[in-house]
Amino acid sequence: MNGLPMTVPDPGLPARVRIHEVGARDGLQNEKTAVPTAVKAEFVRRLAAAGLTTVEATSFVHPKWVPQLADAEELFPQLKGLTGVHLPVLVPNERGLDRALALGADRIAVFGSATETFASRNLNRTVAESLAMFEPVVARAKEGGAHVRGYLSMCFGDPWEGPVPVHQVVRVAKALLDLGCDELSLGDTIGVATPGHVRALLSSLNDEGVTTDRIGVHFHDTYGQALSNTLAALRHGVTTVDASAGGLGGCPYAKSATGNLATEDLVWMLDGLGIETGVDLAALTATSVWMAEQLGRPSPSRTVRALSHKE
Amino acid sequence: MNGLPMTVPDPGLPARVRIHEVGARDGLQNEKTAVPTAVKAEFVRRLAAAGLTTVEATSFVHPKWVPQLADAEELFPQLKGLTGVHLPVLVPNERGLDRALALGADRIAVFGSATETFASRNLNRTVAESLAMFEPVVARAKEGGAHVRGYLSMCFGDPWEGPVPVHQVVRVAKALLDLGCDELSLGDTIGVATPGHVRALLSSLNDEGVTTDRIGVHFHDTYGQALSNTLAALRHGVTTVDASAGGLGGCPYAKSATGNLATEDLVWMLDGLGIETGVDLAALTATSVWMAEQLGRPSPSRTVRALSHKE
Repeated sequence: MNGLPMTVPDPGLPARVRIHEVGARDGLQNEKTAVPTAVKAEFVRRLAAAGLTTVEATSFVHPKWVPQLADAEELFPQLKGLTGVHLPVLVPNERGLDRALALGADRIAVFGSATETFASRNLNRTVAESLAMFEPVVARAKEGGAHVRGYLSMCFGDPWEGPVPVHQVVRVAKALLDLGCDELSLGDTIGVATPGHVRALLSSLNDEGVTTDRIGVHFHDTYGQALSNTLAALRHGVTTVDASAGGLGGCPYAKSATGNLATEDLVWMLDGLGIETGVDLAALTATSVWMAEQLGRPSPSRTVRALSHKE
Repeated sequence: MNGLPMTVPDPGLPARVRIHEVGARDGLQNEKTAVPTAVKAEFVRRLAAAGLTTVEATSFVHPKWVPQLADAEELFPQLKGLTGVHLPVLVPNERGLDRALALGADRIAVFGSATETFASRNLNRTVAESLAMFEPVVARAKEGGAHVRGYLSMCFGDPWEGPVPVHQVVRVAKALLDLGCDELSLGDTIGVATPGHVRALLSSLNDEGVTTDRIGVHFHDTYGQALSNTLAALRHGVTTVDASAGGLGGCPYAKSATGNLATEDLVWMLDGLGIETGVDLAALTATSVWMAEQLGRPSPSRTVRALSHKE
């Protein structure tokens, strides 16, 4: 098969999808292995060389909370020479924004929650308080000409609250956009969503005036549902999909089980559907194989495993 | 989340799906661990108790080729008392059919190939010769009142021939139905299919007069595509889906990587979509956890891993 699926387009799906690659940030922040800054820089460079046009590079969160990414100040300047790729960074608050802007970041992301329990546990704030905290962050980023992404986590289910009502997600999503976010990333943080639920949330957002071009989707593969949920989102017209090279990000309870949708599994499907991504699957897979060696464990991506076995 | 997804139906999908459970046959025939006959019988019983209504029980192939299922004669009579469940068995030829019918099997399956190379390697025959071999098998099974399923492997890609042309698959599929098969199971034996390819094959079969109610789909998760391909098939109206409890069947090259679509991952999606299957996900997961203990390795099913961790 020379490592590529047969291409058979499916009418009703987009012609092109932008992959928002989160492996270097969302992936590595959940890895236990300490990764040297030079390896992180090489990872981002290789991802860009494989054709990814948006590679979330790191997070300017306090090192106390995410020690894995404590080297953001060292890492980000090493990526300066890269062209043809956006390098958004996550910032938790104004202090993080200051650090990111000082280094020339022109794309930032904030990370909110659709549920009170996760907002409380992850941000130590109510949802309203977290939005108030983001307000000056987004405003100042926009004033500085930066593009702003709003992550919204727990959009489908929450480990403490159970299923999350669609209207509750829509309310917080609209609030993030009202703050000035250019795009939203709807996160299924615990991986419980199914295609009808995805479609219902997207439809409700549309009904409330949020156009699909401002919506990205971020699915987790905890229950193996990420790719079918992505297909449902594509069928609804979504063209921005988050994924993590090699499925990095792991899962707290199972070795090499996956959290994030693996970029390679996504690209396999998109290649097969004739949907343009600009990504070279072989180069991406080689990058994930290399990164798995750095981390000392196999990639949980099924496509990476299948293709790397054949090499 | 108490182990269940939120139910949000998606218009345009079937109200009910029949799962054709293949773990006890297709799964165990690919496992290296020798499984005692009593464990196999208990496995089938537990699968039926979890609500599966079609549980492929074993194969009457020569023990030389599939030693894992050499105990078919011992196993099958132990399942006699089960009610509310069909117990199809695979037969390779007339000799296998004789053995199956002698034990009272009333559902049989034959296993064909859409490609010449796999027919040659797996059946030691051309495609035409294999159809000639199946002809008396199907005819005699039908005369005896048995229901006959025709497996068609390599429907999307073949490891030696690459992508398989849709018209070639349609030709062999029609030939199997012309022999008298009641239903087809379209197999993506190497897991390379993507949703547009699935849709194209199903449409071509319809164009050639094969109605969707006679078609089942059998996807492998080698590249992580099985569930999105299943979703595409459901959207086309397919209501028979093959899956393997716990993802049994493995993968020759990666420990706990998956070959067959895991029944639990499928049921999670179908439950979330409000599609009836009659399967109790908790009971099914408990069965796969138990079977994984018998095999001495974790289940590759993501849903099994996620749910059993929570227990």
